[in-house]
Amino acid sequence: MKVVIIGAVAGGASAAARARRLDESAEIVLIERGADPSFANCGMPYYIGGEIESREKLIVTSAGMLHDRYRLDVRVRQEALRIDRQAKTVRVRRLENGAEYDESYDKLILSPGAAPIRPELPGIDHPKVYTLRNLDDADLLHAATMGAKRAVIVGGGFIGVEMAENLVRRGVETTLIERNDQILTPWDAEMVAPAAAALRSAGVTLKLGAEAEAFEPQDDGGVTVALKSGEQLSADFVVMCIGVRPENALAKAAGLAIGERGGIRVDETMRTDDPDIYAVGDAVETFDSVTGKPTQIPLAGPANRQGRIAADNCFGRESRYRGTQGTAIVGACGVTAAMTGLSEKACRRLGVAFEKVYVHPASNAGYYPGAEGMTLKLVFDPENGRVLGAQGVGGKGVDKRIDVLAMALQAGMTVYDLEESELCYAPQYGSAKDPVNMLGFVAAGLLRGDHPVEHAHRLLDCELGDSFVLDVRSPGEHAAGAVPGATNINIDELRERLGELPKDRRIVAYCKVGMRGYLATRLLRQHGFDAVNLSGGFTKYERFVA
Amino acid sequence: MKVVIIGAVAGGASAAARARRLDESAEIVLIERGADPSFANCGMPYYIGGEIESREKLIVTSAGMLHDRYRLDVRVRQEALRIDRQAKTVRVRRLENGAEYDESYDKLILSPGAAPIRPELPGIDHPKVYTLRNLDDADLLHAATMGAKRAVIVGGGFIGVEMAENLVRRGVETTLIERNDQILTPWDAEMVAPAAAALRSAGVTLKLGAEAEAFEPQDDGGVTVALKSGEQLSADFVVMCIGVRPENALAKAAGLAIGERGGIRVDETMRTDDPDIYAVGDAVETFDSVTGKPTQIPLAGPANRQGRIAADNCFGRESRYRGTQGTAIVGACGVTAAMTGLSEKACRRLGVAFEKVYVHPASNAGYYPGAEGMTLKLVFDPENGRVLGAQGVGGKGVDKRIDVLAMALQAGMTVYDLEESELCYAPQYGSAKDPVNMLGFVAAGLLRGDHPVEHAHRLLDCELGDSFVLDVRSPGEHAAGAVPGATNINIDELRERLGELPKDRRIVAYCKVGMRGYLATRLLRQHGFDAVNLSGGFTKYERFVA
Ligand SMILES: Cc1cc2nc3c(=O)[nH]c(=O)nc-3n(C[C@H](O)[C@H](O)[C@H](O)COP(=O)(O)OP(=O)(O)OC[C@H]3O[C@@H](n4cnc5c(N)ncnc54)[C@H](O)[C@@H]3O)c2cc1C
Ligand SMILES: Cc1cc2nc3c(=O)[nH]c(=O)nc-3n(C[C@H](O)[C@H](O)[C@H](O)COP(=O)(O)OP(=O)(O)OC[C@H]3O[C@@H](n4cnc5c(N)ncnc54)[C@H](O)[C@@H]3O)c2cc1C
Ligand SMILES: CC(C)(COP(=O)(O)OP(=O)(O)OC[C@H]1O[C@@H](n2cnc3c(N)ncnc32)[C@H](O)[C@@H]1OP(=O)(O)O)[C@@H](O)C(=O)NCCC(=O)NCCS
Ligand SMILES: CC(C)(COP(=O)(O)OP(=O)(O)OC[C@H]1O[C@@H](n2cnc3c(N)ncnc32)[C@H](O)[C@@H]1OP(=O)(O)O)[C@@H](O)C(=O)NCCC(=O)NCCS
Repeated sequence: MKVVIIGAVAGGASAAARARRLDESAEIVLIERGADPSFANCGMPYYIGGEIESREKLIVTSAGMLHDRYRLDVRVRQEALRIDRQAKTVRVRRLENGAEYDESYDKLILSPGAAPIRPELPGIDHPKVYTLRNLDDADLLHAATMGAKRAVIVGGGFIGVEMAENLVRRGVETTLIERNDQILTPWDAEMVAPAAAALRSAGVTLKLGAEAEAFEPQDDGGVTVALKSGEQLSADFVVMCIGVRPENALAKAAGLAIGERGGIRVDETMRTDDPDIYAVGDAVETFDSVTGKPTQIPLAGPANRQGRIAADNCFGRESRYRGTQGTAIVGACGVTAAMTGLSEKACRRLGVAFEKVYVHPASNAGYYPGAEGMTLKLVFDPENGRVLGAQGVGGKGVDKRIDVLAMALQAGMTVYDLEESELCYAPQYGSAKDPVNMLGFVAAGLLRGDHPVEHAHRLLDCELGDSFVLDVRSPGEHAAGAVPGATNINIDELRERLGELPKDRRIVAYCKVGMRGYLATRLLRQHGFDAVNLSGGFTKYERFVA
Repeated sequence: MKVVIIGAVAGGASAAARARRLDESAEIVLIERGADPSFANCGMPYYIGGEIESREKLIVTSAGMLHDRYRLDVRVRQEALRIDRQAKTVRVRRLENGAEYDESYDKLILSPGAAPIRPELPGIDHPKVYTLRNLDDADLLHAATMGAKRAVIVGGGFIGVEMAENLVRRGVETTLIERNDQILTPWDAEMVAPAAAALRSAGVTLKLGAEAEAFEPQDDGGVTVALKSGEQLSADFVVMCIGVRPENALAKAAGLAIGERGGIRVDETMRTDDPDIYAVGDAVETFDSVTGKPTQIPLAGPANRQGRIAADNCFGRESRYRGTQGTAIVGACGVTAAMTGLSEKACRRLGVAFEKVYVHPASNAGYYPGAEGMTLKLVFDPENGRVLGAQGVGGKGVDKRIDVLAMALQAGMTVYDLEESELCYAPQYGSAKDPVNMLGFVAAGLLRGDHPVEHAHRLLDCELGDSFVLDVRSPGEHAAGAVPGATNINIDELRERLGELPKDRRIVAYCKVGMRGYLATRLLRQHGFDAVNLSGGFTKYERFVA
């Protein structure tokens, strides 16, 4: 059996290593356009920023090691030009001298990844307008960063945000421009506001709703970025981080099926519509494990696992990919944002019925030093309580809770299951009622009708004009900032002051995060008031105002 | 409705707060023997050690707050003496003056907790032989620690280990004696060896297999601890941490059913065999969610959730407890040990068929600074791959993986599900193939027959006398320490040196952690050798030797 693999990094190298473990006698050829196989794409921003000090660390497994340990035939600086599906060969060019040859295969695995998008804007070809995909790019950016004063990053996705963190780490004055009105668009806007705030307070100039229109050379060798608004930003260099596009050229030319958004179409075995050609990683269209709909999520975990599955199937094993769940995480100057499954906006876009709750717990017991705050949002099925997705933002422990919720989602668990989850508790690690239990409590309470909630944006949108807004926080908290027009009655005095409340109006009760508001809601409803709790409290409200 | 609750801390206070949320008009009385309701038992060791600086922090919710916010009638320094089930009253004594009165109830919830065991040993009543249960105890120990030179802790469970960490933090020369040959007996021995090593290197003198026999007063006011071995240890004070016993006296006297190990018997609604009496927390016997068998696990998470469930049922809600999973965590001088579900020894004790695997991954991508190592052990059903339990020990990220695996266990997931889990990955948080995936890969590979394994203890027990032991690490690694009698052939040269291996003997291949050993096993088996992989590699082997 001879397996040829195109692309020798996350998906390709994983497929190759697995293939060798499955078959000692197989011939396994890896064709890689770049200089290095198996490198740490995900580490590059941190190498540029100096957090990872040595470039060598980015070479996860060298070509030599891949040969010695796995007897893989790794051919770097060679490019696959086209596939002849009839002849079952790949045309390959040696980049150092342009020589070409045909390589035959029994099974072919495509893992060519995705290329950073470079929109056709005037001046985009300026040598100081960079993208970041491979080690050559990283070297250029590493060099550009040294001694640079100002940089502009275009695009506030993962890579844009990571680059911003790392450029400020290097002392570069950094402006991040993002077309949308939020960074990190897979998340719901209110869930990434704290990440945006963290970037800002670390010194990043964040321009939301701003779009680059052209790049003009400067006399000093720098670039001026012209925005649609008319504003001009002067920079020593620019990094384009506006997303990636599947490298589908080979597949397309070979007549393989391609999805609407450009991903190579594969089935659950990672097979394309040619029985001898598999495709994995950033280049493919898979399906969303929650909705079953086509999706393209360019992340390393799925790429690695898909590579393993493709190898299995090449050797007759019936491994199946279960779809991509959309679990993702990013660090932004000390704030972590993580998510899994469907966001609220994805539900709206897809017309999926959902309910949502927020909690604002601490990473661990409040009485133990070093506890850090976080916000968690759970999106779930309003009928049966099944978890549809979760998002978290804040300090330490966000990754843990989203991983836990990713398992809940994978297992098809409900909010009632989360109420009863039994998680690790000692004061330095968590709480006796873990944040995940808390999400379960609040969500299950909502479904049981214990505490109807109202959402902050509706207050802002004046859709609740006739409601009585009740602030149940302490007078001190109220004085420091409150919803306009709210009446303040401390929760602890509420029972004695019921007379001050209207029986004929809807009461929207709120506190800092929702807990006292919940208590007030329970209390008032039992006294015959039409009360609801402001979900997420003033904390969430402020984030919507921001 | 009038609810009386005995014990106002984890289970009791949770039940009371929930009861109020369920019913604004209920009368809710809490009887608490101690001076404070709702305090942080779990924080006490860290207060004694100074990590938590102020005692106030341990009062999670004061009696005043419980009254103001929840209108709970909290009666501290009052002890429930007996229950009259016929009359539905509780006899209560005010501890400050000895006055007694009867309190009637519609529903009674018992959450009296568990008392530290004080074995009847000579001299046990010495005033410097402490236990740690409540704030009075914490005050005494806090005072005893100040200026003390030497202390002896008897018992290496959670509390003993936490006390050891905290006494050395205070600069006290600390000896921890433990009757068993390991600390933290719920874990398998090899999984807590690193925690023991951490205690030792922090300065704790750890004596395993040592038992206290008597306590003798010293002239300077200290205590001499006499061990069964004849050894005498001199100490300024002693802390007895040999476990707890359910406070079942009230329940027993009232004729309620009591389990074999002393826990009050309850059903899934937390109801005792009296329809109006519920019991929760450390005082009760519940059932193991994995085996369904009776169990008593005195931890705060279960106590809190059981309190909530008992309150629900008092008010006619059909909440059900799903059993205790045994999720637990402890910090030991920088090393974290965590577990969930069944250990290997629990499986053996109960006759549950199991298979097990170990992995030794890093907390996050190795190329990102600050990655810390850990060992994970997965115990699973050899037939269908269902997760039965997991244990972890090491640096950061252990709590996360055990929480993730706790969810897998709760959901009834299999090792095949773990292969496909989609967890958060960016280099500072995890790996593209998360440690949890890795457990899934290794375990699933084992079940699929890809790599038969052999276990370290069998090598040690000389049960494998006729096997050929093959060290596939580098010569440098081999020279630094190896299994006696092993032949060293670097994995990278193995294919060329097959001639040096016997075809007629079983080959046990090993490397550092099991990964190259796995590769060697695959390679050799495909070349017709009868090869197996040493599970967990030399790392695990050394831990068994230790
Ligand atoms: C800066 C950066 C940071 C990232 N951070 C994260 C993160 O934190 N977490 C995360 O999950 N993911 C992250 N990712 C994404 C992750 O790296 C990708 O999802 C993953 O590498 C995709 O694997 P792949 O095998 O599909 O493609 P790649 O790893 O990109 O490999 C494709 C390879 O194929 C080669 N190739 C393409 N066409 C040809 C051809 N015709 N002939 C020969 N060779 C060819 C390319 O040179 C390339 O090396 C990051 C990516 C970048 C760029
Ligand atoms: C030092 C220490 C550290 C711990 N660390 C952890 C940890 O890190 N993680 C974890 O999960 N668990 C930990 N625990 C265990 C946890 O505190 C208990 O599991 C939990 O508190 C049990 O709740 P409970 O309501 O059953 O009992 P408790 O919280 O002990 O409350 C019982 C209360 O009932 C009162 N009482 C008893 N009898 C009567 C009576 N007749 N009349 C009136 N009042 C009465 C007692 O005074 C006591 O205050 C720790 C415990 C201790 C002591
Ligand atoms: C490095 C690379 C070649 C590794 O591929 P790999 O060998 O499949 O993956 P790992 O090194 O994680 O090893 C996993 C294998 O080791 C086995 N293994 C791991 N620990 C083990 C242990 N203790 N005992 C036995 N087997 C073990 C696993 O079972 C798995 O084998 P399987 O797939 O046959 O079941 C590939 O992942 C790569 O190139 N990565 C870098 C690029 C990249 O991912 N970039 C994006 C992220 S920055
Ligand atoms: C402090 C104590 C009285 C709290 O009891 P509690 O009010 O039930 O628990 P919490 O404060 O965690 O609050 C949980 C409640 O708030 C609700 N809640 C939490 N965050 C919310 C939010 N953002 N919006 C709405 N509701 C919220 C939850 O739904 C839950 O209510 P429910 O049970 O009715 O569903 C009790 O746990 C206690 O005494 N603890 C200290 C003792 C102890 O546990 N010791 C051992 C560990 S150290």
